[in-house]
Amino acid sequence: MTTPEITTGWRMMKYKDKCVVSCEDQIVTEYPLTIYLNGDEFATLVCTPTHLEEMTVGFLASEGVICRYTEIKSLHIDDDQGLAYVELHHCSTPAQTFHSKRFIGSCCGKSRQSFYFYNDVRTAKTAVTKLAITAETCLALMAEMQNQSNTFKTTGGVHNAALCSPEGILVTRTDIGRHNTLDKLYGYCLMQRIPVGDKIITFSGRISSEVLLKVSKMGIGILLSKSAPTELALRMADELNITTAGFIRGNQMNVYTHPERILL
Amino acid sequence: MTTPEITTGWRMMKYKDKCVVSCEDQIVTEYPLTIYLNGDEFATLVCTPTHLEEMTVGFLASEGVICRYTEIKSLHIDDDQGLAYVELHHCSTPAQTFHSKRFIGSCCGKSRQSFYFYNDVRTAKTAVTKLAITAETCLALMAEMQNQSNTFKTTGGVHNAALCSPEGILVTRTDIGRHNTLDKLYGYCLMQRIPVGDKIITFSGRISSEVLLKVSKMGIGILLSKSAPTELALRMADELNITTAGFIRGNQMNVYTHPERILL
Repeated sequence: MTTPEITTGWRMMKYKDKCVVSCEDQIVTEYPLTIYLNGDEFATLVCTPTHLEEMTVGFLASEGVICRYTEIKSLHIDDDQGLAYVELHHCSTPAQTFHSKRFIGSCCGKSRQSFYFYNDVRTAKTAVTKLAITAETCLALMAEMQNQSNTFKTTGGVHNAALCSPEGILVTRTDIGRHNTLDKLYGYCLMQRIPVGDKIITFSGRISSEVLLKVSKMGIGILLSKSAPTELALRMADELNITTAGFIRGNQMNVYTHPERILL
Repeated sequence: MTTPEITTGWRMMKYKDKCVVSCEDQIVTEYPLTIYLNGDEFATLVCTPTHLEEMTVGFLASEGVICRYTEIKSLHIDDDQGLAYVELHHCSTPAQTFHSKRFIGSCCGKSRQSFYFYNDVRTAKTAVTKLAITAETCLALMAEMQNQSNTFKTTGGVHNAALCSPEGILVTRTDIGRHNTLDKLYGYCLMQRIPVGDKIITFSGRISSEVLLKVSKMGIGILLSKSAPTELALRMADELNITTAGFIRGNQMNVYTHPERILL
């Protein structure tokens, strides 16, 4: 079995100020992992080939297939073929039936009206954390994550997400897919039984509704991003009691929802 | 019927140098469009709500459901609910059967060995263009697209793709999803019957395999990006005879594949 590489060399022509040189660049790899669930093809994730078990576990939890790691009877990764074979203790789940199925909410019902997939309506959690942190802590955690990211510095092609306590980063996961970084963290928390109520996530990518929902399903109450949010993500964060901050760069940040957790 | 907004105001706390002010920011919206194909739910695209017909047509072409616009009998967009109803002249397609199904190629067969979805193996086209452009043209086209992008300047949350001739930009499409910008351009080309053999695409996002494949299916031979490529995308570009350049910023760029189309 060969372990897939995260980056690889590629010969290219570098053009600068009307001069051209041939040189080798480090390029990030892209790896398809197809998950078979109880024998059936469930989904294909295109990812950076690290922490594939964690990503598989986190993805299944995020999709509402499992709530706990112990629901998985066996998990086998075939690195060569890019396949993950998962057997559950239970045979089938409502999540499989509703996988990627659109949910169209009533215009009258107030709750969960922003959601558009069945599984999200079922699995998104309202944050209950009492955690509050200073604005300086937010800036420091983002700076720490950015400084750690060597793959990004080399290739310019990946995103990072980090699970943090107010004291610093606990674990960082890297991937070409923003959402995969969160699935890897989610899988890590489930497999290691990490309590998340007192944790924070720092994230290099945009806060889309998909990203916000993954954070919500994990049970995290504070999401800090280097980038912009979308309006739908902010409406969901408002409803799900999650603090979101974006454009965290240097000594600046924007706090969009539930600012009561950020001490000024 | 209400036309969905592209950006919207959001009140936030802006933190800078230990001071905090409450102010309104412009945030990009996120809009789910679910495509019904001959009466069945086919896919949900999360997008910026512009050019929804073009995006639907381009997505169906990219997925291999249609080759020509004339295969569509009717196309109706319900803006309020975020639904697209598409009726085809033919009843069903192999593409529906293989939608998102993993293709695992033979290790011995050389052709299409990088591909991992059935539909891509079937629909990706080898570029046959004789077009060649100067490096200065590449830099100028990228600068023109970046200068045009008002939504990005306001919200920091969208990607752009532009269809260009060597003389300049013909049409630009903007979206929160990188791949949607390309589907919108693809739909535009099909609906307006634009010949693509002499065209170039400039793109703000990373060159992933998905992006490269969309460009290949359109029949475009030159792809210029502001960002990084992935190795799988470059292998596909090499095989499909597509010129790719990345990190086009100011007076610099990296040419990764088929540099014979870039005149120095």
